[in-house]
Amino acid sequence: MKILALDTSNHPMSVALVEDDQLKATITLNMVRNHSVYVLPAINDLFTKVGWQPSDIDRIVVAKGPGSYTGVRIAVTTAKTLAMTLGKDLVGVSSLKVIAANVPPITNQLIIPFMDARRGNVFAGGYQYQNGQLTNVIPEQHIGYRQLIEAVIERGQSGYLVGELTKKISAEEVELPANIQLLPQTYAMPSTQQLARLGEQAAVVDNIDDFVPNYLRITEAEVNWLKQHPGKHSDANYVQEV
Amino acid sequence: MKILALDTSNHPMSVALVEDDQLKATITLNMVRNHSVYVLPAINDLFTKVGWQPSDIDRIVVAKGPGSYTGVRIAVTTAKTLAMTLGKDLVGVSSLKVIAANVPPITNQLIIPFMDARRGNVFAGGYQYQNGQLTNVIPEQHIGYRQLIEAVIERGQSGYLVGELTKKISAEEVELPANIQLLPQTYAMPSTQQLARLGEQAAVVDNIDDFVPNYLRITEAEVNWLKQHPGKHSDANYVQEV
Repeated sequence: MKILALDTSNHPMSVALVEDDQLKATITLNMVRNHSVYVLPAINDLFTKVGWQPSDIDRIVVAKGPGSYTGVRIAVTTAKTLAMTLGKDLVGVSSLKVIAANVPPITNQLIIPFMDARRGNVFAGGYQYQNGQLTNVIPEQHIGYRQLIEAVIERGQSGYLVGELTKKISAEEVELPANIQLLPQTYAMPSTQQLARLGEQAAVVDNIDDFVPNYLRITEAEVNWLKQHPGKHSDANYVQEV
Repeated sequence: MKILALDTSNHPMSVALVEDDQLKATITLNMVRNHSVYVLPAINDLFTKVGWQPSDIDRIVVAKGPGSYTGVRIAVTTAKTLAMTLGKDLVGVSSLKVIAANVPPITNQLIIPFMDARRGNVFAGGYQYQNGQLTNVIPEQHIGYRQLIEAVIERGQSGYLVGELTKKISAEEVELPANIQLLPQTYAMPSTQQLARLGEQAAVVDNIDDFVPNYLRITEAEVNWLKQHPGKHSDANYVQEV
């Protein structure tokens, strides 16, 4: 199966062309730049380098969040547009699961991928290999880094934290218990090859029309609006009537 | 520390710019193409994308083999030339160790990276995490895949095989014992980010003049020459006097 995998959900922007678990080509840029400017040229560049036509691919696999709002939207919009116009299958994969997949299936311990969500908060979830399959065992959530560690300690299970301990998170100065190990930062970089593999394994593809990012939190604008309009929490009355 | 990492020792050609364990940008091409044609443009492209000058880097880290003769020579020659002309440090890292580093430090079991060396043979070695450091415990060697597995079984130690089971190797049809697990192929792709990290950890840099690839075997031309000139095995009389 020929796959185009793309991930702009966080700091790195990464695209890859993969065929049957074999990486053909990948480009990753990890600077503070505008993913929207770089993602389509990067995809174009890859197709040229590999010698494929966009119509050659069977499936588009996208990291659907959580992550930066703008970043997640760029990848999901790009993936939906390409899937719809090319008439290809679309599969979304959790951006946290992609990070968890950097840990190979050699452990049954808890794998806790996390990413900075600003203000001392993180997006995090819990995964575990069950029968060789990376399985979500703790729902993905938007949580304070300190609260995350406390929750993990309370759980009493041994595990591995996989994520980048940015300055804001490390400022929390949370001490890890002996049974929880933070992996070296190089294992926190999401791999589009792993993304493609997870997307290839998906038995059911997503409905392109219904497909939406997994934000896991509301935007600052939404928070402010809700403050000014107490009690109006439902989606139906979210947009102010004018 | 700013690092340029490059690896053309095997099928994939990969270059990366890394700063203090943080990947800035990377390009990997994994087609049957001429690495010598692509490596310098790729390096140039990365510098442009990241906005660094070649003079900005502190260290060049290169995968020094084993691998394809031509591939290893391209990377080592490129790295030596850049290190010499830019006046930068040069560090070579085993291409097998880079593959082993795809396994994070969460196991004390044996890690056996391998790569196809044609004709049912592989390049392989044994690594193990000791005090968090990936340490060579079985010398890297050029060996039949069947012989490798037999040697591992004889050792009696549990471990993980990390490599791509190409058609030629899998044709050997060697059954693995229960305590030896072949990792999914996606973990066999060498990562220039891990390469950079291993190169950054090196306390001693290489001498640029003396630096040579680690071929682990002699070329077919050498084999043929030695057949025709029995007894002349030393380097001193390798080149035929005319």
